[in-house]
Amino acid sequence: MEKFKKYVSVKDEDHFYHQGAVELLIFNFLLILTILTIWLFKNHRFRFLHETGGAMLYGLVMGLIIRYVTKSPDVESGTVYECEKLKSGPSTLLINITNQVYEYQYKREISHHNVNGHQGNAMLQKMTFDPSIFFNILLPPIIFHAGYSLKKRHFFRNLGSILTYAFLGTAISCIVIGLIMYGFVKAMVHIGQLKQWEFHFTDCLFFGSLMSATDPVTVLAIFHELNVDTDLYTLLFGESVLNDAVAIVLTHSISIYSPKENPNAFDAAAFFQSVGNFLGIFAGSFAMGSSYAVVTALISFMHLTKFTKLCEFPMLETGLFFLLSWSAFLSAEAAGLTGIVAVLFCGVTQAHYTYNNLSPDSKMRTKQLFEFMNFLAENVIFCYMGLALFTFQNHIFNPLFIFGALVAVFVARAANIYPLSFLLNLGRKQKIPRNFQHMMMFSGLRGAIAFALAIRDTNSQPQQMMFSTALLMVFFTVWVFGGGTTPMLTWLQIRSVLVGVDPDEDLKAKAASQSASDLDKNTTKAESAWLFRIWYGFDHKYLKPLLTHTGPPLTSTLPEWCNPIARLLTSPTAYGDQLKDGDTVYIINNDELTENYDSSAHTPVPAQDSTGSIQATGKEDIQEGDLGLGGYKLQLQHTAGQPQKNSLA
Amino acid sequence: MEKFKKYVSVKDEDHFYHQGAVELLIFNFLLILTILTIWLFKNHRFRFLHETGGAMLYGLVMGLIIRYVTKSPDVESGTVYECEKLKSGPSTLLINITNQVYEYQYKREISHHNVNGHQGNAMLQKMTFDPSIFFNILLPPIIFHAGYSLKKRHFFRNLGSILTYAFLGTAISCIVIGLIMYGFVKAMVHIGQLKQWEFHFTDCLFFGSLMSATDPVTVLAIFHELNVDTDLYTLLFGESVLNDAVAIVLTHSISIYSPKENPNAFDAAAFFQSVGNFLGIFAGSFAMGSSYAVVTALISFMHLTKFTKLCEFPMLETGLFFLLSWSAFLSAEAAGLTGIVAVLFCGVTQAHYTYNNLSPDSKMRTKQLFEFMNFLAENVIFCYMGLALFTFQNHIFNPLFIFGALVAVFVARAANIYPLSFLLNLGRKQKIPRNFQHMMMFSGLRGAIAFALAIRDTNSQPQQMMFSTALLMVFFTVWVFGGGTTPMLTWLQIRSVLVGVDPDEDLKAKAASQSASDLDKNTTKAESAWLFRIWYGFDHKYLKPLLTHTGPPLTSTLPEWCNPIARLLTSPTAYGDQLKDGDTVYIINNDELTENYDSSAHTPVPAQDSTGSIQATGKEDIQEGDLGLGGYKLQLQHTAGQPQKNSLA
Repeated sequence: MEKFKKYVSVKDEDHFYHQGAVELLIFNFLLILTILTIWLFKNHRFRFLHETGGAMLYGLVMGLIIRYVTKSPDVESGTVYECEKLKSGPSTLLINITNQVYEYQYKREISHHNVNGHQGNAMLQKMTFDPSIFFNILLPPIIFHAGYSLKKRHFFRNLGSILTYAFLGTAISCIVIGLIMYGFVKAMVHIGQLKQWEFHFTDCLFFGSLMSATDPVTVLAIFHELNVDTDLYTLLFGESVLNDAVAIVLTHSISIYSPKENPNAFDAAAFFQSVGNFLGIFAGSFAMGSSYAVVTALISFMHLTKFTKLCEFPMLETGLFFLLSWSAFLSAEAAGLTGIVAVLFCGVTQAHYTYNNLSPDSKMRTKQLFEFMNFLAENVIFCYMGLALFTFQNHIFNPLFIFGALVAVFVARAANIYPLSFLLNLGRKQKIPRNFQHMMMFSGLRGAIAFALAIRDTNSQPQQMMFSTALLMVFFTVWVFGGGTTPMLTWLQIRSVLVGVDPDEDLKAKAASQSASDLDKNTTKAESAWLFRIWYGFDHKYLKPLLTHTGPPLTSTLPEWCNPIARLLTSPTAYGDQLKDGDTVYIINNDELTENYDSSAHTPVPAQDSTGSIQATGKEDIQEGDLGLGGYKLQLQHTAGQPQKNSLA
Repeated sequence: MEKFKKYVSVKDEDHFYHQGAVELLIFNFLLILTILTIWLFKNHRFRFLHETGGAMLYGLVMGLIIRYVTKSPDVESGTVYECEKLKSGPSTLLINITNQVYEYQYKREISHHNVNGHQGNAMLQKMTFDPSIFFNILLPPIIFHAGYSLKKRHFFRNLGSILTYAFLGTAISCIVIGLIMYGFVKAMVHIGQLKQWEFHFTDCLFFGSLMSATDPVTVLAIFHELNVDTDLYTLLFGESVLNDAVAIVLTHSISIYSPKENPNAFDAAAFFQSVGNFLGIFAGSFAMGSSYAVVTALISFMHLTKFTKLCEFPMLETGLFFLLSWSAFLSAEAAGLTGIVAVLFCGVTQAHYTYNNLSPDSKMRTKQLFEFMNFLAENVIFCYMGLALFTFQNHIFNPLFIFGALVAVFVARAANIYPLSFLLNLGRKQKIPRNFQHMMMFSGLRGAIAFALAIRDTNSQPQQMMFSTALLMVFFTVWVFGGGTTPMLTWLQIRSVLVGVDPDEDLKAKAASQSASDLDKNTTKAESAWLFRIWYGFDHKYLKPLLTHTGPPLTSTLPEWCNPIARLLTSPTAYGDQLKDGDTVYIINNDELTENYDSSAHTPVPAQDSTGSIQATGKEDIQEGDLGLGGYKLQLQHTAGQPQKNSLA
């Protein structure tokens, strides 16, 4: 008897494993379908439904099937059992049922009104993954890839505008959405759809902050394919990347904003605490991310110079790079900061320093690895969003709330883009034209981040309503705006980069803005340029030589009395090859300036549009030392000044 | 008040996320340490501790720290609560504790004697992952990589021997270990360490089958670095790969062997049912794995020919390849077969057909991706093994049982290798020398598979004792045998492949065995050769042209009346380029034969020993069409016969 029982248990366990396999298989199947569809679409140059839209569609269909075809075998769940002996919920619960002890693991706290929602079937429950999987596993590769593949030259040329849109714009968007939603909530209370105490202004702001995270993956993929104007591309890409970071930290700050007494009243102390939290978390995450990248750069640099051929082990290099970058995320999370922000800046810093120390093989490996992970993670998330519409069991769809959200999102996007563009145009030499503004307005898609933030906590009724609404907004924007990108570009007459015309124009414009930059009187612009020039000089003179093999040797940049230390810190190779190195950097740069524009115009960007996701051109990353803003001139000074300095050392 | 409660809950949830981050961070940290150590070791050519041994060591230390430094904050666990209302354990339990509903998820059934073991702290419990993660996520990439990187030429040359060791050898090993352990168990019962009814003969056989899975990762890595004789390498690699598959299916079959009455008595019906199960599961898994690979080959082939440039989207290709291969594993699991076996043969088939259809970029991407995943998964498993020694809470270390296992594993390995080698040498032209046999005996390390099989179910006391013992055996064999590989090779005078000597010898031996193969009277060898030649002909004439771009066009191999179908199935490119293609294949092969041996002798294998894990040389895989056994001759016939056939068509 005892024996028999044991084997039954083994068989049960087997059944359990197969269950896990079935769920993973469903996702695999959806992803395979998505990939095959993308192939088909790419072959027929069909651009109305992007891969992310397709992934959502397949997820939706699969969710429908799981919901209505599979049965509900688990009758017992849904019943609430009493336990008087317990005072609080322990993480593990041992329960004696008919003389057999079972172990149960704590999952979450449930509001009383949600209890009925749990009468669903076991399959639905298993298809719902733990939100922590989103945050710890699926989002980091996407965000890291965004940072790693940032087109630094163009990004820094538009840095001021991007920062304005990202910080000020997101704050405006958050507040506008919050206010509009508060109006709708009041109306809902008025007509009796909602109880007064359920929805506070902070909840509305919370919704505002999570709906402010834009994710123009679809739009940018199409831009990339059509070779749309690089400045518009960079503005949108930069804005959305930083925007996500800002929105996440904002959401975090709002969720811990807790006024002592009346939650509807404005509590100045709590407000400033929130602002402080925001700044602290942002700065801390930034520091955490960059320091991990600096450590990676140092390790790879050390190995490159002190030990024998590092490039013999590209796998170890890649592994270390991958693990340290992920650790940046995890450490920030563990420290109570925002991992997404940390991993974003980690990506940027890795591309700036570590990338230069990698062997050519590792450069390619890391790029391909992160590209691949980004691709998979993105499609898994979009599939899951489709699934969630039917498999999530506590949806609350309130038509008024949804309509309110739609209005709010539009108005907020307009209140972000148009006034800020107007202000920025006052300062910019190269104005942001009207049609670019319309395109930016149109590209305010909501995606993975908004969804992930909304699903993080779906315990109370307001949270469920916000989650369901956010999900619908993602569907709407991805399908409607994503699908409408190509017609919109035509309608707004935004040309793609043409052969022989743009490169010259661009170069002239650059030269003009270059010569004029000293005379520029606008504060914002001048400040950022000034700040930026200082940073560039510091980076080029001290950080780059310390962390990579590029830049002048430290012996020439540090004061003379530092020479012993400088010699110690400079690698022998860098020391010897430096002059030659500096020259080649200069030569490459000059070639680059023309070649880069030519090639992007002539050829349809070789082998890079494989996924349609955002990618920097390989070249861009190699010569990342020089930055658009003022870089051209500084470069000349540097190469001219170097032999002289070298002879001094 | 309500508000306050909500924010408290949000903070709790945050804390929960950070917990997940901390656990992952610990693993990341261990892996980073391991990689840095490997680097150091590789630089100092220190071969006594391999990366896997290092990973285990770090895991061990970390486990020690977690165990004795972290506190036990969760006092409530360890208490068993009664619940009279429940009849069985539901998958989700809702419990009302002080007017708040908590959701608990079913984890497992626990024996009464284990209840005390659960008084450990929450950190220990969180560091213990679900065994299904091993099976669904960590093992598949390792096994797939083994199949994908199989050196087919040498593998097929030694196919007969490898199959004998894998099937017959594993069966012998399983029975010998089972019998010896049964003796020890009887002795333990005799001296009162164990109760009679606890440990059955089937349990002993179960232990025997799981301990029969050898994992010579460490040894092979060192072989690879030292360029040890390719035949010995192939024998060991092939044996261990198939051995794992056999052991897994054997374990599965034994676990479902359930004699009706007395579990100690031999039940012929149940036994034959188990044998039937074994064969059925093995064959089914094989079929599942290969058919997924064939589907992948067909898709990539279709896209290569019917649609426009597939090679423009290497990411999609890689993604599809990855997902379909993983699906092979998951489908087999979902169908109640053995996923590991499926994914192994999927890997072999993918390398044989699909690899030829991939664009050069995808070829490299897939290789690097699987290499990387293999590397990470392997090190995670070994780190986890180290951790498990201290974090697993129900260890039962019985000195007598452990000693018994040590003896049994040795005796069983000897009973596998020496008699089978003797039998095989009767039939082999190229005998397996004495020192190779000793080396194979010495290389019987236990690793990931044995551990994963043992941890799959650790509910009863016998299972816990087996798990603890298996873990110790892994430690012992990896550290002692793994560390002793280099001295052992020297002691046994196994030369590495030397410049200018071995290649010629090898070629001559090959030519000799080639010309003699027809005269060979030994049944096993002749049979495998005969069977093999038929398979090769079929594969070359029909499957290759159908699934890839290599081989002759179908129009020339199918009978004349099939021509319309053949034309339909043959891609225009293959049809047109075939003659040229056939020639280049021949040329490449001839170059290969010499170049391959030369390069492996002259240069220290460029960029491939990055991890020390088993990798085929790139070349080997590219020209995988020709197989060692008879391939040389058939190739000549094919290229000679082709123009003639082509003119017929």
